[in-house]
Amino acid sequence: MPPVRATILAVGSELLSTERLDTNSLRLTALLERFGVELAKKSVIGDLEGEIQRELEALWATSDLVLVSGGLGPTGDDLTREAAAAALGVGLEERAATLEQIERRFAAMGRRVSPNNRKQAQVLVGAEVLENPKGTAPGQLFERDGKALFLFPGVPFELDGMAADALVPWLERRTGGAARETWTIKVAMRPESEVDLALAPAYAEFGQEWMTVLAGAGEVRVLLTAVGGESARRERLAVMRARTLELLGDSVFGEGAETTLEGVVARLLADGGWTLATAESCTGGLVAERMTRVPGVSAVFVGGVVAYSNELKSGLLDVAPELLARCGAVSEEVARAMATGVCRRLGSAVGVSLTGIAGPGGGSPEKPVGTVHVAVAGPGDGEVEHRVARFPGSRERIRMFAAQMALEMLRRRLTAAMPAEGAGAAS
Amino acid sequence: MPPVRATILAVGSELLSTERLDTNSLRLTALLERFGVELAKKSVIGDLEGEIQRELEALWATSDLVLVSGGLGPTGDDLTREAAAAALGVGLEERAATLEQIERRFAAMGRRVSPNNRKQAQVLVGAEVLENPKGTAPGQLFERDGKALFLFPGVPFELDGMAADALVPWLERRTGGAARETWTIKVAMRPESEVDLALAPAYAEFGQEWMTVLAGAGEVRVLLTAVGGESARRERLAVMRARTLELLGDSVFGEGAETTLEGVVARLLADGGWTLATAESCTGGLVAERMTRVPGVSAVFVGGVVAYSNELKSGLLDVAPELLARCGAVSEEVARAMATGVCRRLGSAVGVSLTGIAGPGGGSPEKPVGTVHVAVAGPGDGEVEHRVARFPGSRERIRMFAAQMALEMLRRRLTAAMPAEGAGAAS
Repeated sequence: MPPVRATILAVGSELLSTERLDTNSLRLTALLERFGVELAKKSVIGDLEGEIQRELEALWATSDLVLVSGGLGPTGDDLTREAAAAALGVGLEERAATLEQIERRFAAMGRRVSPNNRKQAQVLVGAEVLENPKGTAPGQLFERDGKALFLFPGVPFELDGMAADALVPWLERRTGGAARETWTIKVAMRPESEVDLALAPAYAEFGQEWMTVLAGAGEVRVLLTAVGGESARRERLAVMRARTLELLGDSVFGEGAETTLEGVVARLLADGGWTLATAESCTGGLVAERMTRVPGVSAVFVGGVVAYSNELKSGLLDVAPELLARCGAVSEEVARAMATGVCRRLGSAVGVSLTGIAGPGGGSPEKPVGTVHVAVAGPGDGEVEHRVARFPGSRERIRMFAAQMALEMLRRRLTAAMPAEGAGAAS
Repeated sequence: MPPVRATILAVGSELLSTERLDTNSLRLTALLERFGVELAKKSVIGDLEGEIQRELEALWATSDLVLVSGGLGPTGDDLTREAAAAALGVGLEERAATLEQIERRFAAMGRRVSPNNRKQAQVLVGAEVLENPKGTAPGQLFERDGKALFLFPGVPFELDGMAADALVPWLERRTGGAARETWTIKVAMRPESEVDLALAPAYAEFGQEWMTVLAGAGEVRVLLTAVGGESARRERLAVMRARTLELLGDSVFGEGAETTLEGVVARLLADGGWTLATAESCTGGLVAERMTRVPGVSAVFVGGVVAYSNELKSGLLDVAPELLARCGAVSEEVARAMATGVCRRLGSAVGVSLTGIAGPGGGSPEKPVGTVHVAVAGPGDGEVEHRVARFPGSRERIRMFAAQMALEMLRRRLTAAMPAEGAGAAS
């Protein structure tokens, strides 16, 4: 089948301000990507009929598929219907069934349909109406000469369902169902360049265009992509996944787009039957806050202490004042004492501690801004683990990296401590 | 002066994926808004020379000012220069001074300029070179018939300085310096519709188009805008600001785009000479984490306890086990006991506590998901304050709103407790 050339237009003056970004295009792009359809252009136009018409004419002339969002509502500046009619050289007609649905919706709220709202029953002559179960403005699908124009409402949750219901079948038909599928593999606290280097053999085997490495916030995502019929692409993804996991080894903390590092740590705690407590200074509760994002974490997370002052490090975590005086609050010794102290005082099997200098003030030549000590005590009676790092950037970035490093240390420690499963039990 | 019609084009195939959004346009739009210049359109095009050329031709024909970002680098898919030359019908020439600068930059890194990198010295005939102190790709300004085309690099931090240095003077000249200025006023924990209603008299006096109400994350921002010469617009903003503050009263927690609720609470603590400690259950450290975002907060924030389990509520916060058994952890009584307990145990003048059900599990008919109790103890010996709320939405939203409510209660309590300043001392 010939490739589909797609373009996206977002309509709305508010999308041209500094306050809003068009994000509907991302939802539509995700659907296009699923079917391997190339997006050639996207644009944003304000609520001016002539401008919308001109852009639609240009897009219609050069695309097989034009996806429009916004400008279908009842107010005077909702002009997408009129502009599309002019651009395509067709009229608008009122559809009785659509009007009836709008009337029913209003009747249910005890209201009558105003002339403004009646406008929403106007449809391009020859177009199919796409029902909007979540709002009043219906969508439209207009087809001519093998090309298609979709009009969607601008409200994201109205667009979502409608795009899935109407656009997906169109893409399936038009591409022969040769969908694209992506699998995500996640790595924490390793530089993007290092992950990139480690994957070089896989690039050579599978083609670099099917493997994307994306970095952000102490996390690297590797996106594996395959195209084709369901069984062929699943098989291809399985092979790529196995090779990627082999190359990245224990750097991989999880798989799937929704997986989080704190979620993995919570699962490891549950699997091992351990409880966790946190002792934080420079991160001010960020590690505890991240752990408690996980639903149901109360089974394994007992709580934490934010010991910002030295008095609290002694009073709540049993760090000897003499140690604080000798080594300073930002030191390996104090981090270790905080980790063991929080286990003892909060009665948890595992304790993690963070102490550092997030800045902008408080740095010194020996302990510059960005210095962070992390320690993990437990599970069991083994050695308390310690690491020190120096992170660059703003207070916010230093805190974020520190929390990420603590969670990654926890993950590795818990993985190593996990009782071996009965080997060969299945044989 | 005639109004300026501006358009923005972002070049780069990565901006057409689901992974990236063009955010450079927001930076450029902010500059346009400062000078009251209307943005008519923005578009994104991949790295295809013909497509970039076609879009530039359309934009140049209909705009006074075209702002392009991206596609100026050294690689084969950086094609903005060539496309712009074709669209404008001018040639490209190598500028000796620009090449020299690139060579110096490379020499400093001990490298020689490759033919690829030499490409970056190619400039539109007749264009002015815009220096790039933070990278190798220079920008360009091409003017003809009173119109202007700016080419900026796509790397945000390279674009930022260059746009300020080159675009601002152009806008000043072209608009006669009749800049637009915005002032932000912030309100917490009041619905957008209520703020909107309260401002109705000001809309009537000043015109609603100069007052924008924006809502998000438990915070409403009111943006006041004035246009004109410096003294006229400052005076206008002062009048609008005074009226807005009068209408919103003590709902206003701060002014200026950068002001945060936690920053205001930290300042009030410092002004009153008080210290704060937090006792959190459902928010898991979010209030402590927000307080410690404020640089220098260690002077007023001693720390906090994340007491996720009942044992910790008793062990670390002195909540009587009998009270927990009788009222349940999510109750007014326990919230009050946590607030006084954290003051006593952590030695702070003020204590704030949160206990609630963030979901998705754990709700009951009497205590549904979203129920949150907040209490504030101190400063001084007055009554412990308590509020209960039921927030809708996801676990994440419930936690966010709970933290916001706690900080807003703190703000009001501290403001009320502030010793009156020597009235009339200046007279």
